[in-house]
Amino acid sequence: MIVSVDIGGTHLRVALLDGDFKILYRNRMPTGRRSKPQSSCQQIVEMIHAGMENIGHRNIRGIGISSPSVDRRTGKLVNPPNLPEWNGYSISEFLGKRLGVATAILNDASLAALGEHRFGAGLGYQNMLYYTLSTGIGGGLIFDGMLYEGESGFAGELGHVTVNPGGDLCGCGNRGCLELYASGPSIVDKVLEEIRSGSKTSLSNKEFINTEDVFNAASIGDELCVEVVARAGNYLGMGILNAMHAFEPQVIVIGGGVSAKFSQLRPYVEDKISRYAMAHFRGTIDIKTSILGDDASLIGAACYADESISEE
Amino acid sequence: MIVSVDIGGTHLRVALLDGDFKILYRNRMPTGRRSKPQSSCQQIVEMIHAGMENIGHRNIRGIGISSPSVDRRTGKLVNPPNLPEWNGYSISEFLGKRLGVATAILNDASLAALGEHRFGAGLGYQNMLYYTLSTGIGGGLIFDGMLYEGESGFAGELGHVTVNPGGDLCGCGNRGCLELYASGPSIVDKVLEEIRSGSKTSLSNKEFINTEDVFNAASIGDELCVEVVARAGNYLGMGILNAMHAFEPQVIVIGGGVSAKFSQLRPYVEDKISRYAMAHFRGTIDIKTSILGDDASLIGAACYADESISEE
Repeated sequence: MIVSVDIGGTHLRVALLDGDFKILYRNRMPTGRRSKPQSSCQQIVEMIHAGMENIGHRNIRGIGISSPSVDRRTGKLVNPPNLPEWNGYSISEFLGKRLGVATAILNDASLAALGEHRFGAGLGYQNMLYYTLSTGIGGGLIFDGMLYEGESGFAGELGHVTVNPGGDLCGCGNRGCLELYASGPSIVDKVLEEIRSGSKTSLSNKEFINTEDVFNAASIGDELCVEVVARAGNYLGMGILNAMHAFEPQVIVIGGGVSAKFSQLRPYVEDKISRYAMAHFRGTIDIKTSILGDDASLIGAACYADESISEE
Repeated sequence: MIVSVDIGGTHLRVALLDGDFKILYRNRMPTGRRSKPQSSCQQIVEMIHAGMENIGHRNIRGIGISSPSVDRRTGKLVNPPNLPEWNGYSISEFLGKRLGVATAILNDASLAALGEHRFGAGLGYQNMLYYTLSTGIGGGLIFDGMLYEGESGFAGELGHVTVNPGGDLCGCGNRGCLELYASGPSIVDKVLEEIRSGSKTSLSNKEFINTEDVFNAASIGDELCVEVVARAGNYLGMGILNAMHAFEPQVIVIGGGVSAKFSQLRPYVEDKISRYAMAHFRGTIDIKTSILGDDASLIGAACYADESISEE
């Protein structure tokens, strides 16, 4: 049995998986922005114990941990944006010692990519790019069938490439990043900004607007929302096109919450590719949405733990 | 002994290398824009025979071929921009049959990257990006110590990523590509364009202006040339920064003719990185210029042939 742990901005999740990477048990608790890592990790241990009792298993082969902003060389978190108290903390050290088993930790988007590659939308492809469109935009890279992690595990920051050189500064330090135009919050913020400057939209009277509202309004012809979705789609298309030219993947997999609405972004992405891709690349690359959804990082973390243990 | 062949826009080159990848013999002839592939390949065979006679070797282990625009799955050239007559031709098939040995063919920039990684500026690094700044801009990718080729061998088109979304159409079909701002001809063209629109420069009276002239004039304070070099450096910096965020390399190696003047571009590249790179990446990535120069693709082709034969 392999245990997966996902340290998310909103939830801490635990899953227990069998040898075929099927999830036998899952549990979660809210993360809390001010959460302390040690007490949170203690609660993770308790969720794992509860799961083992629940399914009547005692033998853990290993623990895979999916986390934001982790340096794979040290296993420590490095300034995770939504978990300020966790900076410098080693989840893997705590869980490894407490449960007495081997651990493997890596960035969440890379592990989601691995999960989709081994058991989801990327199955059967050798070269794959994964985008997670969510609160932020992350990415993961599979080359020649292997997860490519980069020196410290930070490879695949596909949301932090400049698509608008004159654009705003991003929280990451770079300017005009894709994340500023195609993440969930960026889409909502653009609508709110336009409302404030007097644009008309069917969403004007809503007290709270979320990403889904914008896509839904666009789908029934709300002009402002159509424009904002088009803007997101065009910038996403540019990011994907540049990544295609650099990596020559066979498939691009889109995950994260916003991927549920990818059908509304897809026409803009495909238009960019059909108009601007180099001849070699046109029509040769599939674009798919996630099959595993929220489970991608849990399943990927289990695969990563399994592959890391097998190598030892 | 391994034979290397480089199909260049200006020269066809041949080298004979010993088991330590030292070049024992080299020869070349002009390519000619209207050259026919079969007669050119016959001349390559003659250069190889002359070389073998010259160094008194008879036994060829394999032939590595460095070519523009080659599809590694078929071995055929696909619309090579400077060799229109060669479209669809298989150099490797001709040379393999004529000389009766195993061949391996791949894109020139990828092989130059491999050469620099095995014996040049990338030696000792696991993850490397290679840029060739020349008539065009190409690239090569080394991940986890291995050359990453992409599905058909076209991975690494680092010159054909958009750095200026509002920019001109590039010959490749994309818009605002790095190649339009930092290749040799793009630098010269920008100076000529400014001269035509009345800008003053110390180069105004020169009949022909080449890339080196622009860098030399910039180095002694010619304002127009300083601006054009700054523009190239800033766009190159943006391209490198985006590639850093996507790949997390440990080293970036700059080759190609323009790399001789990279010291004048470096300040702009380093400024972009120090201002805009994500915190994880700042100060962690070395930028070096090519050590092997023009020999990079020849040595890389020999390494590629050697590694391909060893795998069989």
